[in-house]
Amino acid sequence: MAKLWGGRFELESSALLDVFNASITFDQKLWRYDILGSKTHARMLGRIGVLDSSEVALIESGLEKIASEIEQGSFRFSLEQEDIHMAIESALIEHIGDVGKKLHTARSRNDQVALDCRMYVLDHAVLIANKLLTLIQALLAIARKHTHTLMPGMTHLQHAQPINLGFHLVAWCESLRRDVERLESLHKRNNLMPLGSGALAGTPYNNDREWVSKQLGFAAPTRNAMDSVSDRDFALDLLYALAMLGMHISRIAEELVLWSSAEFGFLRLSDAYSTGSSIMPQKKNPDVPELLRGKSGRLYGNLVRLLVVMKSLPLAYNKDTQEDKEAIFDSVESALISLEILQAVCESASFDKKAMLKACKAGHLSATDLADFLVRECGVPFREAHHITGRIVAYAESQGCDLSELSGSELARELSKLAPKLESTFAKSAIDKKLSLLASMQARTSLGGTASKPTSTQITSLNAWVKKMRKALPKLKIEAKVENE
Amino acid sequence: MAKLWGGRFELESSALLDVFNASITFDQKLWRYDILGSKTHARMLGRIGVLDSSEVALIESGLEKIASEIEQGSFRFSLEQEDIHMAIESALIEHIGDVGKKLHTARSRNDQVALDCRMYVLDHAVLIANKLLTLIQALLAIARKHTHTLMPGMTHLQHAQPINLGFHLVAWCESLRRDVERLESLHKRNNLMPLGSGALAGTPYNNDREWVSKQLGFAAPTRNAMDSVSDRDFALDLLYALAMLGMHISRIAEELVLWSSAEFGFLRLSDAYSTGSSIMPQKKNPDVPELLRGKSGRLYGNLVRLLVVMKSLPLAYNKDTQEDKEAIFDSVESALISLEILQAVCESASFDKKAMLKACKAGHLSATDLADFLVRECGVPFREAHHITGRIVAYAESQGCDLSELSGSELARELSKLAPKLESTFAKSAIDKKLSLLASMQARTSLGGTASKPTSTQITSLNAWVKKMRKALPKLKIEAKVENE
Amino acid sequence: MAKLWGGRFELESSALLDVFNASITFDQKLWRYDILGSKTHARMLGRIGVLDSSEVALIESGLEKIASEIEQGSFRFSLEQEDIHMAIESALIEHIGDVGKKLHTARSRNDQVALDCRMYVLDHAVLIANKLLTLIQALLAIARKHTHTLMPGMTHLQHAQPINLGFHLVAWCESLRRDVERLESLHKRNNLMPLGSGALAGTPYNNDREWVSKQLGFAAPTRNAMDSVSDRDFALDLLYALAMLGMHISRIAEELVLWSSAEFGFLRLSDAYSTGSSIMPQKKNPDVPELLRGKSGRLYGNLVRLLVVMKSLPLAYNKDTQEDKEAIFDSVESALISLEILQAVCESASFDKKAMLKACKAGHLSATDLADFLVRECGVPFREAHHITGRIVAYAESQGCDLSELSGSELARELSKLAPKLESTFAKSAIDKKLSLLASMQARTSLGGTASKPTSTQITSLNAWVKKMRKALPKLKIEAKVENE
Amino acid sequence: MAKLWGGRFELESSALLDVFNASITFDQKLWRYDILGSKTHARMLGRIGVLDSSEVALIESGLEKIASEIEQGSFRFSLEQEDIHMAIESALIEHIGDVGKKLHTARSRNDQVALDCRMYVLDHAVLIANKLLTLIQALLAIARKHTHTLMPGMTHLQHAQPINLGFHLVAWCESLRRDVERLESLHKRNNLMPLGSGALAGTPYNNDREWVSKQLGFAAPTRNAMDSVSDRDFALDLLYALAMLGMHISRIAEELVLWSSAEFGFLRLSDAYSTGSSIMPQKKNPDVPELLRGKSGRLYGNLVRLLVVMKSLPLAYNKDTQEDKEAIFDSVESALISLEILQAVCESASFDKKAMLKACKAGHLSATDLADFLVRECGVPFREAHHITGRIVAYAESQGCDLSELSGSELARELSKLAPKLESTFAKSAIDKKLSLLASMQARTSLGGTASKPTSTQITSLNAWVKKMRKALPKLKIEAKVENE
Repeated sequence: MAKLWGGRFELESSALLDVFNASITFDQKLWRYDILGSKTHARMLGRIGVLDSSEVALIESGLEKIASEIEQGSFRFSLEQEDIHMAIESALIEHIGDVGKKLHTARSRNDQVALDCRMYVLDHAVLIANKLLTLIQALLAIARKHTHTLMPGMTHLQHAQPINLGFHLVAWCESLRRDVERLESLHKRNNLMPLGSGALAGTPYNNDREWVSKQLGFAAPTRNAMDSVSDRDFALDLLYALAMLGMHISRIAEELVLWSSAEFGFLRLSDAYSTGSSIMPQKKNPDVPELLRGKSGRLYGNLVRLLVVMKSLPLAYNKDTQEDKEAIFDSVESALISLEILQAVCESASFDKKAMLKACKAGHLSATDLADFLVRECGVPFREAHHITGRIVAYAESQGCDLSELSGSELARELSKLAPKLESTFAKSAIDKKLSLLASMQARTSLGGTASKPTSTQITSLNAWVKKMRKALPKLKIEAKVENE
Repeated sequence: MAKLWGGRFELESSALLDVFNASITFDQKLWRYDILGSKTHARMLGRIGVLDSSEVALIESGLEKIASEIEQGSFRFSLEQEDIHMAIESALIEHIGDVGKKLHTARSRNDQVALDCRMYVLDHAVLIANKLLTLIQALLAIARKHTHTLMPGMTHLQHAQPINLGFHLVAWCESLRRDVERLESLHKRNNLMPLGSGALAGTPYNNDREWVSKQLGFAAPTRNAMDSVSDRDFALDLLYALAMLGMHISRIAEELVLWSSAEFGFLRLSDAYSTGSSIMPQKKNPDVPELLRGKSGRLYGNLVRLLVVMKSLPLAYNKDTQEDKEAIFDSVESALISLEILQAVCESASFDKKAMLKACKAGHLSATDLADFLVRECGVPFREAHHITGRIVAYAESQGCDLSELSGSELARELSKLAPKLESTFAKSAIDKKLSLLASMQARTSLGGTASKPTSTQITSLNAWVKKMRKALPKLKIEAKVENE
Repeated sequence: MAKLWGGRFELESSALLDVFNASITFDQKLWRYDILGSKTHARMLGRIGVLDSSEVALIESGLEKIASEIEQGSFRFSLEQEDIHMAIESALIEHIGDVGKKLHTARSRNDQVALDCRMYVLDHAVLIANKLLTLIQALLAIARKHTHTLMPGMTHLQHAQPINLGFHLVAWCESLRRDVERLESLHKRNNLMPLGSGALAGTPYNNDREWVSKQLGFAAPTRNAMDSVSDRDFALDLLYALAMLGMHISRIAEELVLWSSAEFGFLRLSDAYSTGSSIMPQKKNPDVPELLRGKSGRLYGNLVRLLVVMKSLPLAYNKDTQEDKEAIFDSVESALISLEILQAVCESASFDKKAMLKACKAGHLSATDLADFLVRECGVPFREAHHITGRIVAYAESQGCDLSELSGSELARELSKLAPKLESTFAKSAIDKKLSLLASMQARTSLGGTASKPTSTQITSLNAWVKKMRKALPKLKIEAKVENE
Repeated sequence: MAKLWGGRFELESSALLDVFNASITFDQKLWRYDILGSKTHARMLGRIGVLDSSEVALIESGLEKIASEIEQGSFRFSLEQEDIHMAIESALIEHIGDVGKKLHTARSRNDQVALDCRMYVLDHAVLIANKLLTLIQALLAIARKHTHTLMPGMTHLQHAQPINLGFHLVAWCESLRRDVERLESLHKRNNLMPLGSGALAGTPYNNDREWVSKQLGFAAPTRNAMDSVSDRDFALDLLYALAMLGMHISRIAEELVLWSSAEFGFLRLSDAYSTGSSIMPQKKNPDVPELLRGKSGRLYGNLVRLLVVMKSLPLAYNKDTQEDKEAIFDSVESALISLEILQAVCESASFDKKAMLKACKAGHLSATDLADFLVRECGVPFREAHHITGRIVAYAESQGCDLSELSGSELARELSKLAPKLESTFAKSAIDKKLSLLASMQARTSLGGTASKPTSTQITSLNAWVKKMRKALPKLKIEAKVENE
């Protein structure tokens, strides 16, 4: 079909080409950014005298009319328009006539799409960062209630040391905090304005790129035109940040799945966020955590997709790059809904403190405390203390009980067999008290440790950071609720 | 909202859950397979006496009505139905009443979705294989015209030896042939029927799985129920086969891009399959090959996606697996349109024989022939022949000409300097004739070599293979043009 | 430094280039295949009259001498030799003089490396397939002991239906069976002989490629020379097959980790295959299953690596392809040791039947049986039966007990409230008997189901398949224990 | 074999386990960091009174002795020691006796390995960033010489607009600059000190983590112990940054390969950085750029590897994480040598200005200038100007010449046919002058454009940034030339 760029062509493009080539079916998501960019470009053309003020006004009103048509759903997108840029430019010419044909002066689709995509990426980085802050706050609110709730801390999925649930939830928050920081840092690194780079070499017009950059909330214009149209690092940085977010969520989701199993029983998901089975009437399935875990696949896959597309592309713009958009949209939308539902799931779930406490009584969680007692109060070198404790644990196992269930005298007796010189020390120590689960948890007071006090400190300081970061996050280029489109 | 499985639930599911959890927005593509599976299941229930014949007939007619509603676009899909299976079962109950509630006897959604997905995967493997055969035939038709068309054969993108274009196109076909073989082999490996595996443990009904398997064109029922609902190897095998296809197409596309550059100029794309620039009026861009090259990203990414989803999932079914479908659909649709447009691009393009011939005259393409002459007619060991030829090439470069442009006497003189003992042999050999580009190409007559004759043999034998394979490919489970949906 | 190929070069290669370019540090693993290929090539040159019989004999004895030097560790590899091919050819020339310089006639490094790599890949596919068969047999031996060992079958990591452990282990074996089939199928697809393809265009010698192919146990020579030196599908097919193996192992490993946790307690790993903690003396960690699970990362990564390398490479050979080898070696070695240790771990572990039985008593595992009872003996449509059962499960939960713990009269009473018409049927049915865990497991007798009998059938038939496949696997091209190098 | 942690074990670990489990074969690369960490830990234990000053001194001197043994190659690593941490601790105990057994007080291998790895990652991020700065400077030095060297600027690998070579090289530098920024930003985000987190819950000793953090040049201690031992974001951030670097290098390498082809002929690689063919004596192959391009596969693969490993791991430490190290080492080493050799290749190559100029004369590079002339001097709206220019290009093609070769009068005549009203304007314009290649390039003076002046500005400002960044990069934790090990 006939194209705006078709001057030199003898044959019209084939219908199959139009279907294969067009991005309009998905890049229409960029429409707000395209119109914002075009309006700013028109005003800039006015400032440098390429357009007169009435032309600028005409273009602006035409673009606004198109915006309201799209918003109301009356705008007709068609494959022949190829992409959102051509769709809007064609409609503009239709609406306001010849003046519309002047809009594309001193720019190219190459810098135009770079601008639109970048604004989408930067804004959605901020939107996701904000949702993350909200989720962290929600998790911290739960954590605060559980700084004294004992649960078995695990390494290798084996009981290791007693911790409190609040401390565990703070660990989740720390990983999500890095996601916020990663999003913030990619925004800072990529907040540069590409328009005016033309096709690849700049323009012979005196584009006021500094002005456009300021208008659109960028830190500065990009520095080299060729790089500006070739670069998709901003998109990859986002896809990577969301892959990492997906990884963190998959770890949280794995724990939600484990904890709501019959074997663990630490957690009961709300009926409102569980599902049943088509065949097994008794089932209550953690579909949401499972899907959250599975989303990591898509988020990783989208990152790989664009990395592969960009591999060994010569400069400058190549059409391969068009493949970036669906990956970006898909990752952004997955991230936004995942964060929302993860929060809802956590807030509506209930923890079973009894089950967690009971679990603490298996696995000799206080063995490290025994070793530490031998070091600190008996002067045994750590490696030897470790060995002695190992033997005591083997003894407890042979008795079919947990280390914390041995009485003081039994402990003293068995320890004395292994370190006869210390018999009297053992005899007078209240070693069994030190091996209580609560004492064990509360003993870990080092900075970042699990005792209730440092846990509270961690919560307070993370909360303060959330508040600070909420203010520090960059402004959106478009304030509208763009995430829902 | 209320669910078919909601008997034990106190709270209705949240609206957010419904959005997050539902697959109906994409898995409706499976509708034909779901209906086919359900009809067959109902008939089987009739055979084993769970349903009587009138019930079977009622269910079948209900399912057919639903099928025609979907086909005509009058069926209303809604999020509350979660997935295509529930959507169809609900509609069935609505249409035919209580008998509809009996359909889900002796099966589960777990084996049902495994069946639907598998049939989709297997059928589309066959559809893509068929399109590949068509493409190979089209390429062979072009190749047959060009078994005498000289072009520079390259390694390291450096001129290496003269070849003919037909031979190069056969190399493309060989890679595509492996794609067909891969698709055929995954079909064979995975053509096993999972229905009747129930949720994970089989059923207490005497399901006649052999009969269902035969009815649906499978080789046999799957062998272990738990594996049957956990296994997504069939989907991964397809995603891998299509990633490989994408890789092969990316290599072909890279050459199309190179060849249509001004520097190479070997190929002119049809206007009907080229695009222009929004800013540079003279441009004619190979957008199609570029997009074809870029599709590799998506095809690789989809493979990674599902590999990641499946990593470390405990048996049996987990909801994470729902993430397989969009990857499958996307890869299948990308492959189908890519094959179609690649064929159209190649068939409509024109090769510039003159440009290719001219290119042959740079790069001393006949150097290997000189070395081989020294070996075969002068008895020089190959390593020495290689060294002598290297010096002659350096001489030609110093003269600013190509090796093939040195006269017989000049060659004899320079060779004699390097191997004085052979002076008389050189003098009487018509060495310059042997170094002509055509002679060089035609000299490579070994099996699989580039000379016109073995090239023709390759074309003929590949064509015969295509015809054989066309018949040997498995039948579709649904003959309709399912690819367009 | 000076190179065998350096005839036309004015400058020697830089030391940095030598380090960067050389593959000798890793491709020496191919030495056996390189020597086998060279010996066969020399004999073929003898057959077609390029070498006389004494030259062939000299070359063969030279190559054998080199082989024994490498085997005994006295061969000196150095960076200057670039790769294993050059290293052996140089040594040959050193050992036997000028005749050695004739070996490289009618071949190129491009087809030589394609041959070596292919033989390595094909042989290791067979070696791994054999190890898989051994593992499957070992697992089946365990499974056979446990066809009556009850355990909770899970979906969504929630208790679903009672199964037996043997049945679960068969599910593992089924996934490993597909790995064997995938390895066998890639061997068949890729067992084609590339030597004689020359640099890219064949050779002007009358190479007897059919003969070489037969000598080396290939099905046939490759068909197009250009494709033969460009193709790395055989390597990718192996990397994919091993990524899939890694995925399957990660799922098994995940279950080993879960089962050996305190919460599950189904499994006790042998001390010989467990590890301790440097700080927590009581810990016994499932490091082996965890590492096995983690190997999936490396196996996936290696697949991605080569897919990326091959993306959009123009024909024919490019140096990028050298990056295939470390990926292949790493995946092969990871697979071999993983299979060996997985078997050792499983064989040395002990299952805790009591713990598994106890677990069955949570989660209302027999709920589906109740629904099926309502369908089969009371004529209730399945959907309604599902709903009624859901209410009964809710009742059991309200009573704080498992469905299987309700008495017959209690069940009858509660069912009657929900379906008053069936009161008399309920009264006389021994419904509680049917809901016993053992009865529930034994009821699933459908083909592939979990009842002890079909489980035994599955074991027997898999064992038969193993034996058949053991014989059907292709022969190794080199029988030596190549996997240890 | 007997282990430091073996107290509770009845059986010794199997030899196979030792092989599979050990990381000592590769993690010995961390030795410097392990010793630095241990020395600092010992001093901290002295500060808080766990060790007395003579014990601290003894431990320090023991560790220094071990360091010098490793440096001199006399230290014996063995599989039984499992990992570098155990190897050094065992040696310490051997050297200094019982006091050595006290070193592991108040820490765990979990926080120890987190510290070592983090220091390795952070230091190598800085080392690579520094090498990048050096490379950028080298490229800028070349660019500065070529701000007037015309070459065809391309999009879609089609001639687009004339640019200068310097401008193109600056585009390369801009992408590398983002790599530096990414490395710097990951250093900042991850420069937190994990030691003192213990196994997962902190320690009951009053570890002075602030002091350790300062001593080792960290910004602060990590904030939550559980997260500290679970977190591998720092490693992933590096693997991602290096994957991106690999992508950028693959694009540069692709252009080096293209430019040194016979078809382009823009670039001649130095013999010192080229290679020959084993069979084709005339070949000079760009092996180095090809391998550089291929390294992207490994760098992507390593990123995927660790992303996969981390997916859905429950907290806290799991052995799977051990799989991070080889990926990190491999990516770091690939990046370091790639940067070094890329610089050497570029510095030793020579550009063929004539070939580049000649190439500019194909492809109607000044078409955009014609369109801009119509806009600026004739008042034609851009879309119409674009169309008219398209027709003129078609005219030039019909004449078999380039747009820049049409004479002024011919241009005026043809333009007048298309826009009759402007005939007089065309007649008096020196339009052919404006379409000269040099004028076209020099016209693009917008910020970031290709004209010589803005190009020079770009070079100057990038150079200034390099100098600033060189100072701003963080200090190494270990100043030694650690990259060579």
